Amino acid sequence: MKSRYSVGILGATGAVGQKFIRLLQGHPWFEIKGLGASERSAGKTYAEAANWIEAVECPDYIKNMTVQACSPEFFEGVDFVFSGLDASVATEVEGAFAAAGISVISNAKNYRTEKYVPLLVPEVNPDHIESIKKQTYDVNGKGFIVTNPNCVTVPLVMALKPLQEAYGINYVIVTSMQAVSGAGYPGVPSLDIMGNIVPFIGGEESKIASEPLKLLGELQEDGTIKWAEIPIQATAVRVPVLEGHLLSISIDLKRKPASADEVIEVWNNWKNPLAELELPFAPEKPIVVTREDRYPQPRLHAYDENGMRTTIGRVRLTTITNLSFVALAHNTVRGAAGGAILNAELLVKKGYL
Amino acid sequence: MKSRYSVGILGATGAVGQKFIRLLQGHPWFEIKGLGASERSAGKTYAEAANWIEAVECPDYIKNMTVQACSPEFFEGVDFVFSGLDASVATEVEGAFAAAGISVISNAKNYRTEKYVPLLVPEVNPDHIESIKKQTYDVNGKGFIVTNPNCVTVPLVMALKPLQEAYGINYVIVTSMQAVSGAGYPGVPSLDIMGNIVPFIGGEESKIASEPLKLLGELQEDGTIKWAEIPIQATAVRVPVLEGHLLSISIDLKRKPASADEVIEVWNNWKNPLAELELPFAPEKPIVVTREDRYPQPRLHAYDENGMRTTIGRVRLTTITNLSFVALAHNTVRGAAGGAILNAELLVKKGYL
Amino acid sequence: MKSRYSVGILGATGAVGQKFIRLLQGHPWFEIKGLGASERSAGKTYAEAANWIEAVECPDYIKNMTVQACSPEFFEGVDFVFSGLDASVATEVEGAFAAAGISVISNAKNYRTEKYVPLLVPEVNPDHIESIKKQTYDVNGKGFIVTNPNCVTVPLVMALKPLQEAYGINYVIVTSMQAVSGAGYPGVPSLDIMGNIVPFIGGEESKIASEPLKLLGELQEDGTIKWAEIPIQATAVRVPVLEGHLLSISIDLKRKPASADEVIEVWNNWKNPLAELELPFAPEKPIVVTREDRYPQPRLHAYDENGMRTTIGRVRLTTITNLSFVALAHNTVRGAAGGAILNAELLVKKGYL
Amino acid sequence: MKSRYSVGILGATGAVGQKFIRLLQGHPWFEIKGLGASERSAGKTYAEAANWIEAVECPDYIKNMTVQACSPEFFEGVDFVFSGLDASVATEVEGAFAAAGISVISNAKNYRTEKYVPLLVPEVNPDHIESIKKQTYDVNGKGFIVTNPNCVTVPLVMALKPLQEAYGINYVIVTSMQAVSGAGYPGVPSLDIMGNIVPFIGGEESKIASEPLKLLGELQEDGTIKWAEIPIQATAVRVPVLEGHLLSISIDLKRKPASADEVIEVWNNWKNPLAELELPFAPEKPIVVTREDRYPQPRLHAYDENGMRTTIGRVRLTTITNLSFVALAHNTVRGAAGGAILNAELLVKKGYL
Repeated sequence: MKSRYSVGILGATGAVGQKFIRLLQGHPWFEIKGLGASERSAGKTYAEAANWIEAVECPDYIKNMTVQACSPEFFEGVDFVFSGLDASVATEVEGAFAAAGISVISNAKNYRTEKYVPLLVPEVNPDHIESIKKQTYDVNGKGFIVTNPNCVTVPLVMALKPLQEAYGINYVIVTSMQAVSGAGYPGVPSLDIMGNIVPFIGGEESKIASEPLKLLGELQEDGTIKWAEIPIQATAVRVPVLEGHLLSISIDLKRKPASADEVIEVWNNWKNPLAELELPFAPEKPIVVTREDRYPQPRLHAYDENGMRTTIGRVRLTTITNLSFVALAHNTVRGAAGGAILNAELLVKKGYL
Repeated sequence: MKSRYSVGILGATGAVGQKFIRLLQGHPWFEIKGLGASERSAGKTYAEAANWIEAVECPDYIKNMTVQACSPEFFEGVDFVFSGLDASVATEVEGAFAAAGISVISNAKNYRTEKYVPLLVPEVNPDHIESIKKQTYDVNGKGFIVTNPNCVTVPLVMALKPLQEAYGINYVIVTSMQAVSGAGYPGVPSLDIMGNIVPFIGGEESKIASEPLKLLGELQEDGTIKWAEIPIQATAVRVPVLEGHLLSISIDLKRKPASADEVIEVWNNWKNPLAELELPFAPEKPIVVTREDRYPQPRLHAYDENGMRTTIGRVRLTTITNLSFVALAHNTVRGAAGGAILNAELLVKKGYL
Repeated sequence: MKSRYSVGILGATGAVGQKFIRLLQGHPWFEIKGLGASERSAGKTYAEAANWIEAVECPDYIKNMTVQACSPEFFEGVDFVFSGLDASVATEVEGAFAAAGISVISNAKNYRTEKYVPLLVPEVNPDHIESIKKQTYDVNGKGFIVTNPNCVTVPLVMALKPLQEAYGINYVIVTSMQAVSGAGYPGVPSLDIMGNIVPFIGGEESKIASEPLKLLGELQEDGTIKWAEIPIQATAVRVPVLEGHLLSISIDLKRKPASADEVIEVWNNWKNPLAELELPFAPEKPIVVTREDRYPQPRLHAYDENGMRTTIGRVRLTTITNLSFVALAHNTVRGAAGGAILNAELLVKKGYL
Repeated sequence: MKSRYSVGILGATGAVGQKFIRLLQGHPWFEIKGLGASERSAGKTYAEAANWIEAVECPDYIKNMTVQACSPEFFEGVDFVFSGLDASVATEVEGAFAAAGISVISNAKNYRTEKYVPLLVPEVNPDHIESIKKQTYDVNGKGFIVTNPNCVTVPLVMALKPLQEAYGINYVIVTSMQAVSGAGYPGVPSLDIMGNIVPFIGGEESKIASEPLKLLGELQEDGTIKWAEIPIQATAVRVPVLEGHLLSISIDLKRKPASADEVIEVWNNWKNPLAELELPFAPEKPIVVTREDRYPQPRLHAYDENGMRTTIGRVRLTTITNLSFVALAHNTVRGAAGGAILNAELLVKKGYL
């Protein structure tokens, strides 16, 4: 493992790109050496090209960097790239980078269901990174693609993994109340969402129903993933919250738990596979369960452990499904840029980067 | 049926009491002749006693009325009273009024589960008013009590009734996203809810699970109600919305619907038992189904038909339960004061008042 | 005066256009007979072309109307048009309509400072409509243009007019706290404004400083307006409010008022020049002064008298300037579409339309 | 100077008290050793007594501390106390602590205008602490009282101080748009403020008009302060913002500035009297001027330098007064608990504590 890695950011001027830039400030391993955006931005300084929306100031050295078009030739000096690209261009651009031997740690959805591309949440399915070896995007075997899931999938799958191990899961019904930052910038018009709820988010419910199945699936000898078979039924709504998706989850477990306390103990005693790895972005406690009825709340708890923790609350045995609870995670940190950074850290530690 | 009824408002200075006053302005049948509140307010003018929070000005004649203590002796001139009393005093006060021969149309929860007290939504269970005949609060047989349900129960039961008739219901799972006005005034502190969600509302989930069962139950020959047996599992959260509760509902029907369109037709063709009664507060269409994915929204649709309509949307067949949809109603109009007024109108029309 | 007028709406799919459509429903004089929008929308039904954002449903007959391009040839059947056009096209389009003999009652800013174009608030400067006679947009002398001012100018000038008459005005300092609806749709991103203030609105402060001077100016014999000479210094900020601009106003009067009560009486006794005209959109009381410290509030009072009233509060004598107060009006009704409709009503009554 | 100071918090369960607790975590000099609250809370653990509302978890050792009544006898082990007491009790309690030889660094308003009590903003009037020597609250000469100003006064006086030195000030007109956290907890009801503005905050405007005059005044040889004579006219309104007060300021300077740039240079070049003192809570740049029109914004900039910075923007020469700008500071950090901590740090450094 090298002591420092040079990284590029693809889609650097967008909302996810800005979050990558912000989160990587002071990172002990990764240093931003390249910024990629659309042709329209190429050649400008980052300060000129980006409408900075983060609540901390953009660092001066970033402001002064020249934005490049998203072509591998402009990123020859980097060890790998993070991608916050829009889905409309990610297939082509990310493929080109991988082909050129520059691995892509992507937040875009485009490659998530590809056979040998890990859809990765390090605490949940770290072994899936073995699939990488079967990737053929780069004939030289160097460039590969790894993805993180949709922002709702992260807290959902974090909550499900220990339950899957301890009880088995029959099915899951979820209503996700999602923050406006999930729609990027400019994203949701204030006239639509102030004091309001919009009961639909395009494309979201199908991702919530499918992505956890790959994440909770089993790595096969041939490098593919055998997806889990757990019916998930989702309703996704937009709420006037800035950051933090809150999920109301009802779940039917194969083995019925004896009490809510027993379930809480399952989460508390769950063995975090990252515990010994000392990854900079890994939360000390990836899952925390609160017993305060009024918790977790997006505004109070989404930022816990720098936005990398999932908080669970309102745990109770129920009569139709046998368990209900709510779960919260920061959608643009844990559910996007921060999750991708943690993915890169695992890949570094395991020798893939 | 008389042409004009004199009515009193109990709990007149509270949030529900103010809504009664506002909604009754210009009512063709009912005229406010008495205002009751706590001993602390008694003797003051309404303008002095109340901190008016409605978005239209308080009428001058109301401002100048003298507030009375909530004792029947001060309400001898009225034909009946509406009650927006707090649960902490409603048992005693409402009982005393009924005993004194002054019928009570109540929004309080205290008598909702009493054997002969109708829990009434006129479109859903108008026949339940027959129970009144068995009430013995008033030895002279004149004073009775009728209640309306919790504000979440109304849109839920409005949506369920036609489904129950057409398909039968195995069970219901609901997440209710509830407006701050549901907590009264001062109610929810802004520091708690601005840009936030609080995943708990005390006492709410058990009411959602039980009240629909009485409403969907059958009147027995002995005047009691045989409650329906439908498991309902609820998660109730507070969202930064002013007015309008939005429910995410998953429901398992006994007979599986052929298509979402078929279910929509069931709602559209449902025969409204109030259709011919010409009650002033009865919405022309108590249930409207929208096919716009992004609808219904609290801010856009809670006020439809003066806040008395339930709007349903996102209707879709699903895999775990066989149907999912969202439903919306105005929590302080349809779900509280407006619902009580409609109850009184039905009772007038049927000769009970 | 005819009993019914056929009107067209230019910019019909935008936020202001939608407000015109909503407000004109049931109008006793005006009937919508044409809808104009961009080439992109032309030929579609209104339902297809517009993303309807009003909180009441779009009427069916409007939904089914075919949208036309904004050329006079498509509007031959109308008596005049309302314009909610974007400033980028209003100069050309409105000029073409006037030239073709179709008068334009415009909410756009483009012609507001033109020599013979009345910038009109009917209660403030009804005599300015005489300027119309000097307009030469139409060689046949039929088509003319009349404009209403910026949404902040309306409450400001409503408050200033009686003070100007009673005391004379040395100067005005104003901070305007402006609702998001003022930016149209999609307008202000929720990420920018939820729980926040943006202390700048492009182009707004100069309009606030200049438009009242024309409105408070004097009609000259040659049909031009001698602008008033009152220095106005403005700071315009965006706040997380949906509808209603609130202005904090400090004003130095030429003659020092004896008391706040005296000033309040000036407003209360001000003679409304529309009082006898029976214009459908004219508020009964265009100015109302409240003595409640906590009033006026956008959410509670912007909708008073159907959004056509200006409410003044917090009136107090001060030491630097000699008077301070706050004023509120509905920005998209009184400050835009509703103001334009009132302008048209005055022009009808006075025989110009 | 000792290496560690034991401190007590009076009013520890309230909103300001909680902020003290949060901000003092990890403080290099101060360690919380006592928590005082009302008799009702005395004897309980802090976890039992307080309804914790901060967005980071309450530290365990604080949760387990026993709350004391606010009597000096229970605080004998502390070096001094911070007071977040309510004004209704602060006069008596703070006086008793000072009399008992326990100095009080107070956020309450009660002693702010007392002759020998410094009203202190360390960057503005550090020399005022000499007044302490004249205090006679403690016959033994040990216990004294120091106060920080109202939360609006801080950014106002931070902006004014350099202007006073460079230009002299004729008068100031300010509209302050204030966050809900300024009203404590439960504070502002959500029904009052969501999507709304309340144009009045009781007692606020008079504090804004007077407190800066003491802060900008001159220490006299007799230990009293000769107040500055600058008329300040304020309008204070409540806006739906969580944290950060934004001020719209118009100011008439005695010497007219040549340009906005010149004024910006005055702020940029202002010599911060704390520059060399290495106080832990002192911001590196107490005043920052932004040239971005859309800045500063409460949500983006209130937290800069841990909430201790004042940010100024929209600087422009104007015609009535000769300068206008906006200023922002965090109301509960810089404007309350954080300001008091900085006061204590200065007093330690100068040998008073």
